[in-house]
Amino acid sequence: MFMGAITKDGLDIAEKSREIVKSKIKEVLNEKYDEYTKEQMGIIERVVHATADPEYAKLIAFTDDAIKNGVEAIKNGKPIIVDISMVQAGIRYDNIYNYIKNEEAIKLAKKEQITRAEAAMRLLKDKIDGGIVVIGNAPTALIEVVRLTKEENIKPALIVGAPVGFVKAAESKELLRNSENSSISAIGSKGGTPVAVSIANGIIALSRNEKA
Amino acid sequence: MFMGAITKDGLDIAEKSREIVKSKIKEVLNEKYDEYTKEQMGIIERVVHATADPEYAKLIAFTDDAIKNGVEAIKNGKPIIVDISMVQAGIRYDNIYNYIKNEEAIKLAKKEQITRAEAAMRLLKDKIDGGIVVIGNAPTALIEVVRLTKEENIKPALIVGAPVGFVKAAESKELLRNSENSSISAIGSKGGTPVAVSIANGIIALSRNEKA
Repeated sequence: MFMGAITKDGLDIAEKSREIVKSKIKEVLNEKYDEYTKEQMGIIERVVHATADPEYAKLIAFTDDAIKNGVEAIKNGKPIIVDISMVQAGIRYDNIYNYIKNEEAIKLAKKEQITRAEAAMRLLKDKIDGGIVVIGNAPTALIEVVRLTKEENIKPALIVGAPVGFVKAAESKELLRNSENSSISAIGSKGGTPVAVSIANGIIALSRNEKA
Repeated sequence: MFMGAITKDGLDIAEKSREIVKSKIKEVLNEKYDEYTKEQMGIIERVVHATADPEYAKLIAFTDDAIKNGVEAIKNGKPIIVDISMVQAGIRYDNIYNYIKNEEAIKLAKKEQITRAEAAMRLLKDKIDGGIVVIGNAPTALIEVVRLTKEENIKPALIVGAPVGFVKAAESKELLRNSENSSISAIGSKGGTPVAVSIANGIIALSRNEKA
């Protein structure tokens, strides 16, 4: 299995696509291509493959220890905490927490007048401690996770920050990169489910000694 | 509820974002902005909102009857048939068929050496007849659906074509636009789950007399 493909046709498409993706990334990055590790480049390839948008080659930022910490967490069976169901549906891992439709999260959101995704993160803080957070949509969820790490001593192994949009998304990811957390994030307004899912599945593949 | 938001914070973000999205679309389209109907523009706004990529303003193609036919199908409770679980997870509708993990589809795919998504469409042809097909990932699934309409007299109400990638995706969508089907599709290599889901949720919103 490679990139979710199990049949010859599926594998052919995945492999041909990866070759084209590689050359597009090289065009975008030029001499900066060699600044990335093989594992980082594997994750960037996944993102460009999933979006058909080579601009992402320039937009994925890694802290030094991000991949190592993420892989270790998966090897230890730690949970992945996500903001929305689309992100959950795409990640090839069983131990996933998604509270976007959780009754208690909806109640808390209404009571505090915060977003559901933000309330969900607050309720999941014990899972976030030691786990991997993957945010593909809600800036408010990412902002809340960073707050938990600063104010409540919660320590995720890795935060994947890929909220998308023109309101708060870029800022939430900058807040993440300026924090002490291990992170992989998209720079600017762009991001979304395919970006978040690609990064998470890359980490999972590496933890199984497969190609990122 | 607007764009999935139910709390004040969520609504504020969704509405602010829509305003910014509108101005970005106007920048991209210039005088072509007025060539779209209000309903079409609502759907384009959703796509740009979900991707933070204003280039999509130029990349969404509608056949004339696409929105009308899609809205009618939803009002009549017709099924939506999707290619992958991420797309299913994002669409706000209950009557959805997704056979990507279906045992019979996996068997057929292995036997015929086709992709799982393609096998799934073949098995779901009776649901596709009269229903709405939403493809967010697999070019092979879209190609199979178009074949069903040409060779097996299957008549979907609407096909949303948003496969993504550098292998077969652009071609599959061109094949769709050159067919006799009602369609909404992304032009070129770009597309993916958020694009497919935004279009589908736009149609669903319109069928409930909400804003696209």
